[in-house]
Amino acid sequence: MHEDHEANADMGEPLLRRRHSLAHVLAQAVREVRPDARLGFGPAIETGFYYDFLLETPLSDHDLAAVEERMRRIVREDQPFQRVDLPADEAVARLERMGEPLKVEWARELAARGEASLSFYENGAFADLCEGPHVSRTGEIAADAFKLDKVAGAYWRGDEKRPMLTRVYGLAFPSRDELDAFLEQRRLAEERDHRKLGRELELFAISPEVGPGLPLWLPHGTVVRDELEALARETEFRAGYERVATPHITRAQLYYTSGHLPYYQEGMFPPMRLEGEDDYYLKPMNCPHHHMIYAHRPRSYRELPLRLAEYGSVYRYEQSGALSGLLRVRGMTMNDAHIYCRPDQLEEELRAVVEMHRYYYDLFRLSSFWMRLSLHEPTDGHKYVEDPEAWAYSEGVLKRVLATLDIPHRARTGEAAFYGPKIDFQIRNVVGREETASTAQLDFAMPQRFDLAYIGEDGQPHRPYIIHRAPLGTHERFVAFLVEHFGGAFPTWMAPVQVAVIPVGERFLGYAGKVAAALRSHLLRAQVDDSAESLNKKIRRATVAKVPNVVVVGGRDEEQGAVTWRRYVSQKEQISLPLEAFVATVQALRAGRLMDNFADTELPKVG
Amino acid sequence: MHEDHEANADMGEPLLRRRHSLAHVLAQAVREVRPDARLGFGPAIETGFYYDFLLETPLSDHDLAAVEERMRRIVREDQPFQRVDLPADEAVARLERMGEPLKVEWARELAARGEASLSFYENGAFADLCEGPHVSRTGEIAADAFKLDKVAGAYWRGDEKRPMLTRVYGLAFPSRDELDAFLEQRRLAEERDHRKLGRELELFAISPEVGPGLPLWLPHGTVVRDELEALARETEFRAGYERVATPHITRAQLYYTSGHLPYYQEGMFPPMRLEGEDDYYLKPMNCPHHHMIYAHRPRSYRELPLRLAEYGSVYRYEQSGALSGLLRVRGMTMNDAHIYCRPDQLEEELRAVVEMHRYYYDLFRLSSFWMRLSLHEPTDGHKYVEDPEAWAYSEGVLKRVLATLDIPHRARTGEAAFYGPKIDFQIRNVVGREETASTAQLDFAMPQRFDLAYIGEDGQPHRPYIIHRAPLGTHERFVAFLVEHFGGAFPTWMAPVQVAVIPVGERFLGYAGKVAAALRSHLLRAQVDDSAESLNKKIRRATVAKVPNVVVVGGRDEEQGAVTWRRYVSQKEQISLPLEAFVATVQALRAGRLMDNFADTELPKVG
Repeated sequence: MHEDHEANADMGEPLLRRRHSLAHVLAQAVREVRPDARLGFGPAIETGFYYDFLLETPLSDHDLAAVEERMRRIVREDQPFQRVDLPADEAVARLERMGEPLKVEWARELAARGEASLSFYENGAFADLCEGPHVSRTGEIAADAFKLDKVAGAYWRGDEKRPMLTRVYGLAFPSRDELDAFLEQRRLAEERDHRKLGRELELFAISPEVGPGLPLWLPHGTVVRDELEALARETEFRAGYERVATPHITRAQLYYTSGHLPYYQEGMFPPMRLEGEDDYYLKPMNCPHHHMIYAHRPRSYRELPLRLAEYGSVYRYEQSGALSGLLRVRGMTMNDAHIYCRPDQLEEELRAVVEMHRYYYDLFRLSSFWMRLSLHEPTDGHKYVEDPEAWAYSEGVLKRVLATLDIPHRARTGEAAFYGPKIDFQIRNVVGREETASTAQLDFAMPQRFDLAYIGEDGQPHRPYIIHRAPLGTHERFVAFLVEHFGGAFPTWMAPVQVAVIPVGERFLGYAGKVAAALRSHLLRAQVDDSAESLNKKIRRATVAKVPNVVVVGGRDEEQGAVTWRRYVSQKEQISLPLEAFVATVQALRAGRLMDNFADTELPKVG
Repeated sequence: MHEDHEANADMGEPLLRRRHSLAHVLAQAVREVRPDARLGFGPAIETGFYYDFLLETPLSDHDLAAVEERMRRIVREDQPFQRVDLPADEAVARLERMGEPLKVEWARELAARGEASLSFYENGAFADLCEGPHVSRTGEIAADAFKLDKVAGAYWRGDEKRPMLTRVYGLAFPSRDELDAFLEQRRLAEERDHRKLGRELELFAISPEVGPGLPLWLPHGTVVRDELEALARETEFRAGYERVATPHITRAQLYYTSGHLPYYQEGMFPPMRLEGEDDYYLKPMNCPHHHMIYAHRPRSYRELPLRLAEYGSVYRYEQSGALSGLLRVRGMTMNDAHIYCRPDQLEEELRAVVEMHRYYYDLFRLSSFWMRLSLHEPTDGHKYVEDPEAWAYSEGVLKRVLATLDIPHRARTGEAAFYGPKIDFQIRNVVGREETASTAQLDFAMPQRFDLAYIGEDGQPHRPYIIHRAPLGTHERFVAFLVEHFGGAFPTWMAPVQVAVIPVGERFLGYAGKVAAALRSHLLRAQVDDSAESLNKKIRRATVAKVPNVVVVGGRDEEQGAVTWRRYVSQKEQISLPLEAFVATVQALRAGRLMDNFADTELPKVG
């Protein structure tokens, strides 16, 4: 095989050899089952291998099972791999004799490029034009650590004018355990895909009429957004932030001042052109608007730090083909804030920002996170604002904060933004995807561009520092993340429906309504299932909707003013308790923002 | 006088005669003080009268006092008014003899237009070209019910190429009491002007860099917005609404479907033109986005009414010259919702909508409101959607609801919207301005345009009705209204700073901080005044900022764990109470949304 080497860069030589050898074993087995199969390419890939075949009739599931069985036999036979080098013209002739037209084409192309000699690898009765590397014997492959995965179509050479081939994918890992772990993670990732769950749980919808990348938040998704925003509002209030609200558009001039125009123009929606007035732009970020609030009147050193927070909606232009679910969007609402502070306040403010991230990660049970510290490269002067003192000071502050807070972090020199060093907060999803959850940015350039100042104790004007931060990122990315992290099962405090009330029969609809009303009077989101379905079907429906609390009410409950409480996280158990105690418990779950979607969370004791 | 009759239409004949006669008396008195004054026009206006004079040197305050004194003398002299009709050419000759060049010009113009005869009115030694009407004697004017008001410049005939005249304004009302009431109301209007208070209380700022009509909400104003939104969220939750969140832009196509394009295009910001894609528009209203949420999947009759609520930001293009404060803006955030219901649900839903308005008006102590019912004119078929049955049904429902709810209302035929009848909710401000606070609109046209349907009990698709409603209007208009209604003194639950904590001396800063922390731990907005000012100055500062609760803390308070509480609405009183009781009281003020900015509101009893 002479292509697709890039994908192999990370997998390590031994695994690469096994995967690549499995591609040959696959082709060998397919040829046994389907002697008419002609060979295309068969590389190792990130999760295993594949091979492309030219076939008269498609492979059935039955064929695949037979192929896999033969592969295991070949592995058991411990066939040696043998490399044979031939002059290019002899290699072409051999492939012609073998009746492999696609391989002939490829070998001729290599010869035309000037390759003097081409290599074959042979094992058992099978031979393939290939540059290796391979295991020395098929027995080196763990027979229980690979499996055929799926069949797909692929054009020869990726060219839609060439024949359509049948691509058979296989998975291969160093051990059975690793294969199983991969399968489990993939199953989780599919089951928890936020696009799938977003549709099933009615969190959001993309409407072609409104446009791609512009999610409409349905009632259930809006609850989640609102709860996140309430959390941020409360957390930021306690941390001394003040909220502001700014328009979604601005005169173009503001972005010339910030430098977004023209440097960031391609990431912005095009302007709205008014007659006799400046152009207007949708805002791609909130910073310049916040700077205008800072600057709307003179500021004194006594007012700093000034922490301006806004869950602000911003719009960024992305190619429509790149848009997907909530992760690649054109409109997003960001947990934004800008902290304007004096140099002597920078360290304390930054420490508090990092601590706030940790508070959120603890709250949401994100144990797998680390921070990437992006520093400037002093020798790359042109890439950065010219201000050695500010660079030295702010990078020193960042390093001290991360060192003293005992948070896993790595520094990367040369990755700072133009206007200051930053921290990227990296989190790993339960399905294994790592992403930048948010970024905290130190900024000593925008205060200059916007001529922001405060009057110091000395009566003189000084420049503030700015910290840009957004611990909860955007609603779009964070909700997508949480949906996958929780598998769609939100804790009571965030759940779109907090309590499903299910009467065991129609006669108890009245009492069910009373229970729901008692909950709703405390602003708890309770819903009665008054459909004509059977009790079991109603319970199942609440379970599919991942409602964290289900109360079933029947005759004895009504007599005793009680409810029978079942929880999503522990389906088998149910307990009976007085209605008032139940309401108080759900209130306590909400007030404490308990993560009762994890089975090990202790429920509040009430009364 | 031959102009400005339109302004007089509403004032009634007797008042018009008196005001118009006062204009003559004003001119007569000015001519006594300044014989060189030449006359322009002198009409009655909405609040009194004015007269324009051509003068060599401006009138001083001293001159004005002398003029007013002479006016009262002329009134006391009970001079008779006499009408004299002259042929046009004789009238011109008389004015030439009188040496009144402006009047000559005007008389010639009237003659040129074909007026055969022109009238003069004479009283005492004064005569003026004028078509009347006037009182028969100056004694009919109440001498204590008028007063000179102010002096301004005005071009002759409103033409900036003609001479600048001196316009003297006077106020005149039927009685002294009415004059005083007007003056008081005007004083209030100036004192409470939301632009003035908005600046003083730091509620919002207009930034030229961001653009006119695009208010930046400062931290204090954002608190008010957030509290209003929290009120709406809670009220709507209790009323069975569900919140949604939609983007601020959309593909143009959506507005062609709704008909906003091209019919409402001039009220919209211009499009953002993307290459190879549909144009995008800022949304001028939320309805079409909500309709897309309704339509994102099939709906059953069991789901209705579906009440989708959003405090949504919309953008409307207004000429920049028309923009002012929060009342004329280009960006606004609306207490929007759309109720999708079956015909048999329309009456109950509409009743609940009207009741919700009344709930808010009671809460905010708005006693002066009425509702305008706008109906269609069946003979004006082209102005309205063709659907006689829907018109009859929905107008019948509206009339029944208003009749049974015993709310003052008036019906106007021919004022309905194209797509259905509506109710305008009219409120009167404390400064006397009446405005449309919001509109509830019945709509049977958009369900057709958007092909909205639900599957009925009969298994067949049906069209829902839609109610558009926004009881709290937009944040911009409603906050402007409340600022003026309250004179900037918000109740505790809405106040940007709920409690100002003032130590009697620097030694008590620690205790003051403890008091504030106790309040803030309950998410109450408390602020310590740690400035170096005197106690009295700090108290004054809190009063100027209209902070509803001020606690002063000193030695005895600290010993006893108490605070000394002063309230904005009753400055003279102060009471001492334990800190815990105080915190509980402020919590109760907030939780109950008590209007403790009115002196007659009873404070909660706690403990």
